[in-house]
Amino acid sequence: MFDPPESPRPPPVEQRTAPPSETAYEWVALLERLLNEEGRRESALEFFLQLHPTDRAEALTGLRGGLRRRIAAELSPETAAGLLEYLEPRIAASAFRDYPAPRLAAALDLAAPPTAAAVLDRLPDERRRRIISEMAARRPVETLLQYPDGAAGRLASPAAPVFHERTTAPNALDQLRLMGAAAESVSALPVVNDAGVLVGSLNPVRLALARPGAAVGDLMERNLTSVTASADEEVAAQLIGQFKVSQLPVVESDGRLVGLIRAGDAVEVVQEQATEDMFRIAGMGEERAAGPLGDSVRSRLPWLVLNLATVFLAALVIGYFDSTIAQVVALAAFLPVVAGQGGIAGTQTVTLVVRSLATGELPRQRGLRLLRQELALGLLHGLVIGAIAGAVGWLWQGNPILGGVVALAMAGNMLAAALAGAGIPLLLRRLGLDPAVSAVVFVTTFTDIAGFALLLGLAALLIRHLT
Amino acid sequence: MFDPPESPRPPPVEQRTAPPSETAYEWVALLERLLNEEGRRESALEFFLQLHPTDRAEALTGLRGGLRRRIAAELSPETAAGLLEYLEPRIAASAFRDYPAPRLAAALDLAAPPTAAAVLDRLPDERRRRIISEMAARRPVETLLQYPDGAAGRLASPAAPVFHERTTAPNALDQLRLMGAAAESVSALPVVNDAGVLVGSLNPVRLALARPGAAVGDLMERNLTSVTASADEEVAAQLIGQFKVSQLPVVESDGRLVGLIRAGDAVEVVQEQATEDMFRIAGMGEERAAGPLGDSVRSRLPWLVLNLATVFLAALVIGYFDSTIAQVVALAAFLPVVAGQGGIAGTQTVTLVVRSLATGELPRQRGLRLLRQELALGLLHGLVIGAIAGAVGWLWQGNPILGGVVALAMAGNMLAAALAGAGIPLLLRRLGLDPAVSAVVFVTTFTDIAGFALLLGLAALLIRHLT
Repeated sequence: MFDPPESPRPPPVEQRTAPPSETAYEWVALLERLLNEEGRRESALEFFLQLHPTDRAEALTGLRGGLRRRIAAELSPETAAGLLEYLEPRIAASAFRDYPAPRLAAALDLAAPPTAAAVLDRLPDERRRRIISEMAARRPVETLLQYPDGAAGRLASPAAPVFHERTTAPNALDQLRLMGAAAESVSALPVVNDAGVLVGSLNPVRLALARPGAAVGDLMERNLTSVTASADEEVAAQLIGQFKVSQLPVVESDGRLVGLIRAGDAVEVVQEQATEDMFRIAGMGEERAAGPLGDSVRSRLPWLVLNLATVFLAALVIGYFDSTIAQVVALAAFLPVVAGQGGIAGTQTVTLVVRSLATGELPRQRGLRLLRQELALGLLHGLVIGAIAGAVGWLWQGNPILGGVVALAMAGNMLAAALAGAGIPLLLRRLGLDPAVSAVVFVTTFTDIAGFALLLGLAALLIRHLT
Repeated sequence: MFDPPESPRPPPVEQRTAPPSETAYEWVALLERLLNEEGRRESALEFFLQLHPTDRAEALTGLRGGLRRRIAAELSPETAAGLLEYLEPRIAASAFRDYPAPRLAAALDLAAPPTAAAVLDRLPDERRRRIISEMAARRPVETLLQYPDGAAGRLASPAAPVFHERTTAPNALDQLRLMGAAAESVSALPVVNDAGVLVGSLNPVRLALARPGAAVGDLMERNLTSVTASADEEVAAQLIGQFKVSQLPVVESDGRLVGLIRAGDAVEVVQEQATEDMFRIAGMGEERAAGPLGDSVRSRLPWLVLNLATVFLAALVIGYFDSTIAQVVALAAFLPVVAGQGGIAGTQTVTLVVRSLATGELPRQRGLRLLRQELALGLLHGLVIGAIAGAVGWLWQGNPILGGVVALAMAGNMLAAALAGAGIPLLLRRLGLDPAVSAVVFVTTFTDIAGFALLLGLAALLIRHLT
């Protein structure tokens, strides 16, 4: 019945020194072939289960929704739990859409609570309630689901052992032994007082080496960095990167301990946040290079249609000045020069602003200062670029007034680019929206319109000198 | 002599629950004021030293080069070492440019070897050699400097305790005790064999709880993830995020252990890599929102000038068709529609390709497959967007042939955008260059030229039907 697939071979699980994605495409192709062939489904599953859980996640992500579900349906709750740890929550929700509720509840019971919460958050309301009600370990997940998606509290693993400051070293060591393997993964154990407030962190090695009479409160480190549960997950990731800690305690606003965020999770947060920002700046939703084509269409086409609408606004400006262009056809050649240059300058500014907001480098109150700074830069760049463009225009068309019009329009448009590039994302954030959303679409529309209006408006005013 | 600065106050060092940058601007402003006032330099230093080392780094980064050096000159090697840990290497090299070589050598001796190597790498050759020769602990740094900047080997901390597989538990525990506080920061200790080859990882808690007769080889975990020293640092960061480990062993190609990369460092790598990619896509070098204006000019003006040169190429295309535009002035209004739409589509594609290359999701061999996929997507989007744009063109100008020209030019330009958006970064990488460098500048130039040539070329061919 079972034909062992001869190629490609999964890598050995024991030691990995290269990223696995070099061959992920081949796995996806093999799985597609096996799944679509009658009677080979078992071989597909057999091959899938040979892969390391992270590679299973890669392979599942590359498959279309229907094939994903066909594989997911065959997995045991235990295997599903291991897989969930490495899948994007969005892909996980898609793959396990039709997985029976009691089995999914069992899988989520075995998964880390932050992972379970992220998957549950992406299920339809009724299915989510049903599954939570069937979960044995529903408390930790319900705690995490109190925080919105994207909050630091959502990433906190509540399972870590917690020590009381008055516990003695031998008792704490017993407590650690009872935790078994779970305790081995942490290098700092959180210490709380009677009220559950985080007061320090205890190193397990220092604990193991301590004299019997010592209390946890004497052994612990009091100087520690933590993050409030309601803060953005990016703030938490930022703190982990800045202080180079291997885990970060999460606390309620009153200081009570919620759990710990692992540095490995922070790497993922930073990675995903950066991808999301880059995609949003460019006018894209969620998609992956290895994902199905339909995802890409859904990700990009809506923004292309929006851009078409806005770019026709810019076309209207040109249409308004058609008699000016009819008199000085050379103006048409300068339209993309002024607009294109503004587009690049605006893209530069918007990229700086969006990235600085994401990394926390640009505090909320400093938006206006940055806008001023960008306007100063726009003026400076406008003078330089305007002078060059004006000189080229003069030499090319042999008309100094045309050169002057190009120079002025260029300088004005560089200012407009600075205004739009800094102003649009700051405004979006002030309105509570994502500052990155389709920033390039909006900024280039603004610089197109400003560039065309400046160039053609000035030309219309000075038309006597241009003909 | 010393006036205590009354505001703004540095935050308490004990516990931090918010990112520090909210007030970094105020610190920079205060330091600038104090440093520029006669006789207040001591107060500036006093204030600076009150800050947490990460905040000192923020403040120093915000200052102009001259003021940075004025503060750095006053710091002890010990303080400098603590600061180096949190400074970008580029900023560190600038701040300590004139710092006496013996003192800088002492500071680098105290810093983590990966940090010291990164700073040394950015010093002029002669100064670097001089300082290395004055360092007491020069061996670890020289080892790291063998690897190029950006390689995983550069991030490896060689100071961690290393255990031999045949050591007994009590001896290993003694070895751990001897390490003192340094041993406390690790949750997994690397285990090597006689040849120095990494064979497993030992958990310190399991070691502390082991029976006396056990050997390290029996206690260790054999299933471990490592990275080769010559791999990109992003690959290492990627593995840490994927496997959610708190540290990653780095090995030579023959398996010998080089050191460990901490997850906190990986967060920084991912963060900086993403920022660099975003900036390069937009045509920017190195700058920060809080940095001096001169940095921004150096970061952006060269690319603006390059774009001006390329955008004039597009202008030449329009100039070539000036008689066509003179006959059908309405064409001018459609120029930005076709070109702008291509620019956005190209930016979407280039963003996907660059990001997928950076996250390792797009393996080297799969470039052509992605190009095909993007061309298919470009065709699909071109048909949809071309149909809409053509219909609007027809209705607006009342000429179905003009509508058809707009539709065809649009569809063709969407294909061109896919070709440039995927082809340019893939080509740049094939040539050994950074695929992100100024991608938007090159892609928009290509789509501008293709869009103008298609629209005006088709119009020139069908000019009888358009007038």
